[in-house]
Amino acid sequence: MNTVEILVFDVFGTVVDWHGSIVAEVNQLYPQVDAPAFARAWRAGYQPAMQRVRSGALPWTRIDDLHRMILNDILTSHGLGHLDEAQRAHLNRVWHRLNPWPDAVAGLKRLKTKFVISTLSNGNLSLLTHMAKHGGLPWDCVLSAEVFKAYKPDPRAYLGVAEVFDVSPEQVMLVAAHHDDLAAARACSLQTAYIERAHEFGADAPKDVSPVEANTLHARDFLALADRLGC
Amino acid sequence: MNTVEILVFDVFGTVVDWHGSIVAEVNQLYPQVDAPAFARAWRAGYQPAMQRVRSGALPWTRIDDLHRMILNDILTSHGLGHLDEAQRAHLNRVWHRLNPWPDAVAGLKRLKTKFVISTLSNGNLSLLTHMAKHGGLPWDCVLSAEVFKAYKPDPRAYLGVAEVFDVSPEQVMLVAAHHDDLAAARACSLQTAYIERAHEFGADAPKDVSPVEANTLHARDFLALADRLGC
Repeated sequence: MNTVEILVFDVFGTVVDWHGSIVAEVNQLYPQVDAPAFARAWRAGYQPAMQRVRSGALPWTRIDDLHRMILNDILTSHGLGHLDEAQRAHLNRVWHRLNPWPDAVAGLKRLKTKFVISTLSNGNLSLLTHMAKHGGLPWDCVLSAEVFKAYKPDPRAYLGVAEVFDVSPEQVMLVAAHHDDLAAARACSLQTAYIERAHEFGADAPKDVSPVEANTLHARDFLALADRLGC
Repeated sequence: MNTVEILVFDVFGTVVDWHGSIVAEVNQLYPQVDAPAFARAWRAGYQPAMQRVRSGALPWTRIDDLHRMILNDILTSHGLGHLDEAQRAHLNRVWHRLNPWPDAVAGLKRLKTKFVISTLSNGNLSLLTHMAKHGGLPWDCVLSAEVFKAYKPDPRAYLGVAEVFDVSPEQVMLVAAHHDDLAAARACSLQTAYIERAHEFGADAPKDVSPVEANTLHARDFLALADRLGC
């Protein structure tokens, strides 16, 4: 753990509250919609859409465009089939406007004093950049699957970070709220920190946040992570 | 000019004072060396080294490695042939420790309130990231020729920014202290701002900073640019 120089962060669910942010915006714009169900349906399309890219069924396609494809598929069944192009484009950009978890900015500022902190998200570069401006996320660097043209859990994404920073994989730690992401990073020899985000899918749908022993660290949130890493 | 959303910055010479920073560090470490001549010799190898990549004579090679190749070539003639591997590696990283021009951080903070601000440098991602931490440069995003695998003035670097941000080239403005960089950006339909850095090569070797009419803007420094852009 003493060798870590670079902390890379999964973003959707780990740094920002996608569910709560989408629910809040949809409640405001379209109060007739079941916003939690809509948010979960949108997110449920995420892995299958990326899988079409990973499998080669689709050429490289960035998340903004995958989000839009999924959105087009779910609008009608959620009572939003009447939205015009400008409204659809605006709604799709909600992923650029997701709000950080309450501890995220303060935790990142502490972690940044001792480590390079960067995103390592499947979200595209412009999405991550706009989100950082929106939420005040103090990244040192914005890395994305878009840079490596490989969606996590493709090893090229994790190993790409070590290559960019010219360090060994053991000098990189992935911070994420998802065990599958962390497992893939461990398989590439990265160190890993699990963050509990019990309410990622909403306060009424808590997820299991039990520790997995293989991770280097397990922390409640980014402030606890900063404590553990001596920041 | 009202359409600009993204400001991208050339870095070496435009944001940071490579000459003054290298001279200061070499003077401290190796007082026997003619530091200004050494700094200029190192920088003089930069375009020829990138040209070997552009021409295909070298495969994609990042600037850290090109800087090291040039360094190896000039050490002996500048009285530094005795440096061991650790000393050479440390000296090569001086490019990660370049200091901002006095107006740079304050100017970027103002520009950031209204625009997305990003690097667009031939420097590699880790170099730019470490430099930002060293100098407190508040980038929203770190873009590099390394992302596009194309060194400026290759059009792919300029057009790559527009593609990443899903905007037209006219919505991107390149800020640089070098007319050749700006001319290549204009050829790609970007807007351009020239910044006077008369002492880029040292106070005793002032360069011509005359305006070129084809640029969208001409500004003394980043504070004057912020004034002109209403920030």
